[in-house]
Amino acid sequence: MALPSDRHVFKTIWWDNGTVRLIDQTLLPETYEERSCRTVEDLWEAIRVLRVRGAPAIGVAAAYGVCLGLQGRTYASCEAVLDRVEQVTAYLGTCRPTAVNLFWALERMKRTARQESSLAPETLCDRLLSEAHAIREEDDRVCHAIGRNGAEIVQDGQSILTHCNAGGLATTSYGTALAVVFAAHEAGKRIHVYADETRPLLQGARLTTWELQQRGISVTLICDNAAPHLMNSGRIHVVIVGADRIAANGDAANKIGTYGIALAAHAHGIPFYIAAPLSTVDQSLPSGESIPIEERNPEEVVSLCGIRTAPEGVAAYNPAFDVTPARLITGIITEVGLLRPPLQESIRWAFEQPLISSWSSTRLLSGRST
Amino acid sequence: MALPSDRHVFKTIWWDNGTVRLIDQTLLPETYEERSCRTVEDLWEAIRVLRVRGAPAIGVAAAYGVCLGLQGRTYASCEAVLDRVEQVTAYLGTCRPTAVNLFWALERMKRTARQESSLAPETLCDRLLSEAHAIREEDDRVCHAIGRNGAEIVQDGQSILTHCNAGGLATTSYGTALAVVFAAHEAGKRIHVYADETRPLLQGARLTTWELQQRGISVTLICDNAAPHLMNSGRIHVVIVGADRIAANGDAANKIGTYGIALAAHAHGIPFYIAAPLSTVDQSLPSGESIPIEERNPEEVVSLCGIRTAPEGVAAYNPAFDVTPARLITGIITEVGLLRPPLQESIRWAFEQPLISSWSSTRLLSGRST
Repeated sequence: MALPSDRHVFKTIWWDNGTVRLIDQTLLPETYEERSCRTVEDLWEAIRVLRVRGAPAIGVAAAYGVCLGLQGRTYASCEAVLDRVEQVTAYLGTCRPTAVNLFWALERMKRTARQESSLAPETLCDRLLSEAHAIREEDDRVCHAIGRNGAEIVQDGQSILTHCNAGGLATTSYGTALAVVFAAHEAGKRIHVYADETRPLLQGARLTTWELQQRGISVTLICDNAAPHLMNSGRIHVVIVGADRIAANGDAANKIGTYGIALAAHAHGIPFYIAAPLSTVDQSLPSGESIPIEERNPEEVVSLCGIRTAPEGVAAYNPAFDVTPARLITGIITEVGLLRPPLQESIRWAFEQPLISSWSSTRLLSGRST
Repeated sequence: MALPSDRHVFKTIWWDNGTVRLIDQTLLPETYEERSCRTVEDLWEAIRVLRVRGAPAIGVAAAYGVCLGLQGRTYASCEAVLDRVEQVTAYLGTCRPTAVNLFWALERMKRTARQESSLAPETLCDRLLSEAHAIREEDDRVCHAIGRNGAEIVQDGQSILTHCNAGGLATTSYGTALAVVFAAHEAGKRIHVYADETRPLLQGARLTTWELQQRGISVTLICDNAAPHLMNSGRIHVVIVGADRIAANGDAANKIGTYGIALAAHAHGIPFYIAAPLSTVDQSLPSGESIPIEERNPEEVVSLCGIRTAPEGVAAYNPAFDVTPARLITGIITEVGLLRPPLQESIRWAFEQPLISSWSSTRLLSGRST
């Protein structure tokens, strides 16, 4: 389904007069439908069932979710606002476990509330809405910076493999892994994208191909299991994927299947890049082993689009993410630059740079343990 | 769907009074339905659309297909029968390109026809039907031998990963990769199977889980892209898959996705076995590079169970097989024993052994070039 004709490039999630509006990604590509979340419970459900998904977009959604949770109440004091912020952030923190951007955004909202606790209750609520807007606006700037910083890794005439959807739909509008693709395309490079369909929920088939179509970029859909064969036949020049959480040593959790692609890319000498904002880095975790991996409903595996694919009574296992070790990663494309191995040191360096965000992730993440 | 109550173990394909009966595997697991092919064209279609699939079963089907093609005609001479055999085998050879068992069985039928060309036309037709029966019966003996010969590779308490369906449904009844599983189970070993769903046509989700359920063997279904994550978390002890064509050096073509599994198994030090009859070995090909890889309709990738998963107009690429190089294969389990590296020499040795088949594949395959 094509976008409404008034917008060539969509936005994924935004605040609209006391509601959070978002593209319902479970309906794409058949139906383009915007949905309103009026309560924090609506928003929790929207994240849980993947109406909005992708680590950076989840972060933005969570920030706005705090504002939804604050609405429609009267507060006798600032402490009452702070109490409600604590309550709402704790609740939102239960919707999905792996993408650290969720916790990053919630922590940022909490800290802002604490820092501004001298304000009048209503003013504080307004200040928190401004902070959520800032998170959204920064995300857009960060994604464009990722696109620019990844420019050097894609050459004219190359084919890029990507997995899942790390595009505009996974962020506020420009994407992470696909930001690099978009930037290369905008720079006039002739490129081709192979998109893994990404079972079980087919974000690659449904969302990535749709986004690339909207922008007129050449794309071929493949089943996830075909990627190593394509690598072996010389059809893939570079792999670029997003991430949901990156440990301090560079190990990166991303959509299930990413690890197998990284192993195959390594075996074929094909560069494998992660593209992600620094808000995806969780410096509190020394390695990927401690990243919590969401296990989703086995129903997603034994059925597809509501049609059962396996016999009744068959057990299924449905981990939503896997972890790619740093040694398989050629580089991490961030808003402050392309981080090369040794990733542990590069990541440390990255957090010492002036950040696009007014909020240092370092401060934030060290704050998480307080 | 459970089997009709009169048969615990099914048969996949058999001759029934002038027709070929087969389980229509496109309808499983929802519906168990036997189908009759009355003409060679029926049978060609049944192979093409995967009502019957799996390299050994395709071989049996093709042999019976020759008999269907001979029926309902009168032959003035033996030469007329031979002409018709040539015509029918050429036609059947066009239905699928990768599984060499198809060509092996067709060649065996042609050679039998030539060798018996002194018979009266009707007697020759009977003789060819006997040969097709022999191919079917040998397949069953070969599969049981594969099960026995693979016994040593599965230990009590282990978990086995398999891909696609190399079970009874891929043969006349006992399977190749699953024969090893069945034999281990029958020997009282407590084993567990992880079955890749195997996109795009979901033979793992639909067929492998169903077969294991029928036999009361513990099975968990996973998406193809989850296997490397399971390997990394120690859940997989051994990989066993089938093959559609094995080159003289041991390179093996099998369902798309097998190569990626082999790469991941290698990276984790997990043994990776192929289980296949010697009729799957194509000694005329020095390496896997020359194995023709079937490319199927892209519709299989952009839709599932008739539901479209990708936007209209998106291109897709759908290779049905990939090639796993010999260096990633721990061993090939055949009816004459477990072949260990160096596979080229082991394969040569295997063809020097007394074969279960009355027909040496060596003779056959060298015969193909005459």
